[in-house]
Amino acid sequence: MDKMKRAERMVAAMQILMSKPNMLIPLTVLAERFGAAKSTISEDLLALKESLQCTGQGRLETVSGAAGGVRYIPEISQQEKDLFLKDLAERLSVKERILPGSFLYMTDLLYNPTILRPLGLIFAGTFREKKPDIVVTIETKGIPLALVTAEALGVPMVIIRHGNKVTEGSAVSINYVSGSSKRIQSMSLGRRALESGKNVLIIDDFMKAGGTSLGMINLMQEFEVNVVGLGVLMESLTDNEPKLVQHYLSLLQLKELDPAQGLALVTPSPEFI
Amino acid sequence: MDKMKRAERMVAAMQILMSKPNMLIPLTVLAERFGAAKSTISEDLLALKESLQCTGQGRLETVSGAAGGVRYIPEISQQEKDLFLKDLAERLSVKERILPGSFLYMTDLLYNPTILRPLGLIFAGTFREKKPDIVVTIETKGIPLALVTAEALGVPMVIIRHGNKVTEGSAVSINYVSGSSKRIQSMSLGRRALESGKNVLIIDDFMKAGGTSLGMINLMQEFEVNVVGLGVLMESLTDNEPKLVQHYLSLLQLKELDPAQGLALVTPSPEFI
Repeated sequence: MDKMKRAERMVAAMQILMSKPNMLIPLTVLAERFGAAKSTISEDLLALKESLQCTGQGRLETVSGAAGGVRYIPEISQQEKDLFLKDLAERLSVKERILPGSFLYMTDLLYNPTILRPLGLIFAGTFREKKPDIVVTIETKGIPLALVTAEALGVPMVIIRHGNKVTEGSAVSINYVSGSSKRIQSMSLGRRALESGKNVLIIDDFMKAGGTSLGMINLMQEFEVNVVGLGVLMESLTDNEPKLVQHYLSLLQLKELDPAQGLALVTPSPEFI
Repeated sequence: MDKMKRAERMVAAMQILMSKPNMLIPLTVLAERFGAAKSTISEDLLALKESLQCTGQGRLETVSGAAGGVRYIPEISQQEKDLFLKDLAERLSVKERILPGSFLYMTDLLYNPTILRPLGLIFAGTFREKKPDIVVTIETKGIPLALVTAEALGVPMVIIRHGNKVTEGSAVSINYVSGSSKRIQSMSLGRRALESGKNVLIIDDFMKAGGTSLGMINLMQEFEVNVVGLGVLMESLTDNEPKLVQHYLSLLQLKELDPAQGLALVTPSPEFI
């Protein structure tokens, strides 16, 4: 019967940890909840750690000391990541996705939780070691991507707006030149959205020339925060021109887009092949 | 040793199910993965179901037949829901949140995954029985809310845009009168974003007069879909005027907002008290 109790306890602990990803749960909370000694809980957690290594669904991180505890960190395995990006690139490389004006239709995938969740885990896994405090994006299509990344990292998100919005309070605005259209546009962010000194991860859905990314980096300087990473789902390599920003990570590359021939070619970025 | 194996198997099954919420996983997949008989897996799942009832972190749904399997449905308990909404209402009822023009600052909460996740579970739990196929919102502030609701329901999301966007392909646009500002605005949605006949759940962050919600309902009629629900995080009751839409659910109510007196009062809606 004792072994049976252990199974129940381990399953319940796993449920509690997985439904609160990235949240530190004190061992005493688990010990009280299950009416078990802290040493018993520690043993259970060791077994849960091993189990997670086998299933590849993330890992447990234990923090020792008075303010310590355990947290579940969701992760995606290397194998799952490679397969997923390869499959996503293939789904995007179809002529039915080519829109007038040489755009590639991708909003159906960008707004689908089953696609977004692995993307968030991939971005989070790539940038976690840079210790971002917050994820920043610009409206609109990158928002879901930024949110799943923030959730996987266990940090909040902020959204830069086009123009100035009354519901954000006093804001900092900058003008920027969209690299591809050469048009001058403005972006703004509420003063209270970001504290100075924070580590910021910028996430967006698409990079053509990089003008929007450069604008976001410039806006971040106004807030005196550190941009520790810039991740985009897809970068376009169709015009062979250098980007306006240098340090970024793309998951996918748009290599060819030829409406006349009905040709769209997307591949995973070299880091992910 | 046999009991020990059972614990490992149950924990691993729980991990796999919880990391793919709402996804139907055939029993044969679990049986093969763990090298166990289907009847053994069925027994394990019964124990997992009981355990979930105790921790209140959701439930397992088994579907019988050839195309059957088991899926994890994330849920929030009644008690957790009540506490959460009460706490959220209190956090919003502070004078520091009052912005010029009588707006209440809430984007910090609206973009925070730890706040969003329970909100998504509450909306999903409320509307699941209406069997929505897709969640629809309008840019920008409602997007994170719509996404977590869609994820909790296991369905995709679509985003209505202001104006017309080149990256969406051919689109349907309508004009609508924003109920509070009385200004005529336009909203549009790409033709390929929604199939006719689908059940649509509309989610938004805030309702004042209801003009935007009415616009979304009208746009949905153009797509010949069924609006099965309309949920907003907060409705304003400060002007005592009837709303332009009738059937909707709000989680919170803004009862008073008086910049002169520095008074903001938000409470959970009566259904949630």
